[in-house]
Amino acid sequence: MGKRLVVIGADAAGMSAASEARRGDPHLEIVAFDRGGFASYSQCGLPYWLGGVVGDRAALVARTVAEFAERAITIRLHHEVIALDPARGEVRVRDRHGDESRVGYDHLLIATGASPVRLDIPGLDLDGVFALDVMEDAIAIDAYLSRHAPRHAVIVGGGYIGLELAENLVARGLEVRLIQRGAQLFGRLDREIADRIDGVMKAHGVDLQFCDTVLEGCGGSTGRVQEVQTGAGAFPAELVILAVGIAPCVELARGAGIALGRSGAIAVDRQQRTSLGEHYAAGDCAEVWHRVLQRPVWTALGTIANKQGRVAGRVIAGGDATYAGIVGTAITRVFDLEIGRTGLTEREAREAGFAAVATLIESTDRAGYMPDRRDLTLKLVAEAGSGRLLGGQVLGRGGVAQRVDLLATALYSALTLADLADLDLAYAPPFNSVWDPVQVAATRLLRAAR
Amino acid sequence: MGKRLVVIGADAAGMSAASEARRGDPHLEIVAFDRGGFASYSQCGLPYWLGGVVGDRAALVARTVAEFAERAITIRLHHEVIALDPARGEVRVRDRHGDESRVGYDHLLIATGASPVRLDIPGLDLDGVFALDVMEDAIAIDAYLSRHAPRHAVIVGGGYIGLELAENLVARGLEVRLIQRGAQLFGRLDREIADRIDGVMKAHGVDLQFCDTVLEGCGGSTGRVQEVQTGAGAFPAELVILAVGIAPCVELARGAGIALGRSGAIAVDRQQRTSLGEHYAAGDCAEVWHRVLQRPVWTALGTIANKQGRVAGRVIAGGDATYAGIVGTAITRVFDLEIGRTGLTEREAREAGFAAVATLIESTDRAGYMPDRRDLTLKLVAEAGSGRLLGGQVLGRGGVAQRVDLLATALYSALTLADLADLDLAYAPPFNSVWDPVQVAATRLLRAAR
Repeated sequence: MGKRLVVIGADAAGMSAASEARRGDPHLEIVAFDRGGFASYSQCGLPYWLGGVVGDRAALVARTVAEFAERAITIRLHHEVIALDPARGEVRVRDRHGDESRVGYDHLLIATGASPVRLDIPGLDLDGVFALDVMEDAIAIDAYLSRHAPRHAVIVGGGYIGLELAENLVARGLEVRLIQRGAQLFGRLDREIADRIDGVMKAHGVDLQFCDTVLEGCGGSTGRVQEVQTGAGAFPAELVILAVGIAPCVELARGAGIALGRSGAIAVDRQQRTSLGEHYAAGDCAEVWHRVLQRPVWTALGTIANKQGRVAGRVIAGGDATYAGIVGTAITRVFDLEIGRTGLTEREAREAGFAAVATLIESTDRAGYMPDRRDLTLKLVAEAGSGRLLGGQVLGRGGVAQRVDLLATALYSALTLADLADLDLAYAPPFNSVWDPVQVAATRLLRAAR
Repeated sequence: MGKRLVVIGADAAGMSAASEARRGDPHLEIVAFDRGGFASYSQCGLPYWLGGVVGDRAALVARTVAEFAERAITIRLHHEVIALDPARGEVRVRDRHGDESRVGYDHLLIATGASPVRLDIPGLDLDGVFALDVMEDAIAIDAYLSRHAPRHAVIVGGGYIGLELAENLVARGLEVRLIQRGAQLFGRLDREIADRIDGVMKAHGVDLQFCDTVLEGCGGSTGRVQEVQTGAGAFPAELVILAVGIAPCVELARGAGIALGRSGAIAVDRQQRTSLGEHYAAGDCAEVWHRVLQRPVWTALGTIANKQGRVAGRVIAGGDATYAGIVGTAITRVFDLEIGRTGLTEREAREAGFAAVATLIESTDRAGYMPDRRDLTLKLVAEAGSGRLLGGQVLGRGGVAQRVDLLATALYSALTLADLADLDLAYAPPFNSVWDPVQVAATRLLRAAR
């Protein structure tokens, strides 16, 4: 009798692990449970499906349940794991009809993801108030848009999801207002970078409101939302989407006595093992090693989920794998503005105890004499003295991912500013200046440090 | 009395060195001689000026003679250095009127660049036969185009300059034929990559001819070229541009007893010193350290010239600098196809004695479900056993520089395929898939190696 791997959560981390475990061990029995009705799809694509950019939501599915079945990986949708019993090696599962069963396992992977933070304010049960988390949410929002043709949308939260939603709701013809706590979009970016994003939102008709208490309540007399009360005032809103942050889903793990890290997510080692032998965790519910900070952090991103899942799957199948960890990379496009970061911002670097120096340059993505050049803003952060690169933030109409990816690769290898200036980067006038903006900034910061 | 730096060649390497030497030593006297009439401009931009993409050729100038003069750097245009006398520390200079003078130096930088290889065939003195090297050539070609409105252009040579010229002459309305020796464009790329470029040329109306002897002669009865005889036959041609390669200008150095490297270019150490104390060389006339091959090579590129010039300038001014060397990066865009490479091709890796493994994947530059995704072809080469990355070649309609630059950064740090798979790259649907094509290829190659 072969051994059995049970996976809780059939998305990026869970199904990467299942696939990799299958590659490593053709005899392993693999069963994945998911409380939702969709497996293995791109959550990051949901805003673009809502906006009509992606026409068919089936395109978001990386691999269907049937395709997994062909590889002898069983997915049970609408099956919620409601308890773990590590002593017996069993999960308790409840199906959509409320029937419960127990399923034994030899290896367990917890890939329960993260869920939107819930606010404790009145009116959130009104029709038209949503959070965008899973496919079901996107379908519900889409149906609501089609049925009620709301005119005013209020998005609460100015991070990645909030801004991507703003763009895509504008594409659906709505008047969009975005309410953000504090004084800047993308609360974690350095202020001088974040402030450059506001203009793009406004240019595309998004009304930006900054305030201390983002949402005080939603109101509506017909069971449907009609307005929101916020710290910035009351606004008409026939559609409200909450994007105020997410938190790791750790209830099952905590209930089973599995240790959480300081971040509140499940603590894992570089093989994705939890504090309990043969119990693994991966993806948005787990911590991840940060190579620049040299400590575990919690960052919920599909790229990390896929990598952690792959490592877990290989280790579970008896193979050898160690996850190198992240450097803190993220990117998005809001209308025509590309916004990327990697490593630490200046503020994060200081908070982490680094003696940080920084420079910001305004440049172009191509040779300055090419008529199709586009503006590029780049901020580099480095450690004083050693000159070690700590992070970069990049804004522009093109070429942002190019700079973020090379900086992320440099951070992976702990390169210095002098290394950056020496990099043999691709140059031709349609792509770059003879010194890439990254090298211009690195050289400037080096000279300032001398 | 301060010391004097004499620079031979007032372009990328020479003027980078001059600027950096000035930064490091405000008292140094700096004089740069150039036999041509233009200093410090982008040679790489010349095809784009010819094609009308860059409207004003003044835009190609990085810094004018007057701007250098403001920083107490003297440039003498139309002054050819015709001999070196290292024993006396003097150069012999001839001006445009044929008058000669001797100029003493304490430090000498040789930045004489490279020149087009001359073929020994009849008819090259006909009007309408050009090579594109310096600004004067571009001006002459432009004047010829305006005056004679040629209909048929033949470009001899299918490397970077040949292809960029083809695009820009098509933009000027010419019927363009490109003759290339051998069986593929970009002779140094792997065949399977190079073969994918042909279709783009043909789609834009460029007639491609491959043959063993590219050019046998040019003919014309009126003193102006009317046809070319090539190994592929005779073709009408009222404009012929030779782009069959360049060679380092080393006559002055050789004449002064300065050692050349195995490549034929001037041998330099990592501080740009030649075999003769206080005689430096930088740019297209000099060799450069190749980090993957771990030996000096000759590669003529503006990026290298700028970096070597900067190192030479710093060292000459008494500062500390060591050039890390190149990894073999190059990029171009031909019509809408971006073509990039870094490190070694599979063939180069084998020739260098590496046990090379390779994989080629067809992917997209953005998430597969985004309607604006574009095809991306990527080939990775790695060392069998160690899994160390040796090189990458990338083709596509977008996102090529992004992959080349991250691979170049990875090569700089001698990363392995496993490292590539772990890189924390920027992901959002408008930019990428959750696994970048580089990571997909690296993972495939890793699995094949296991």
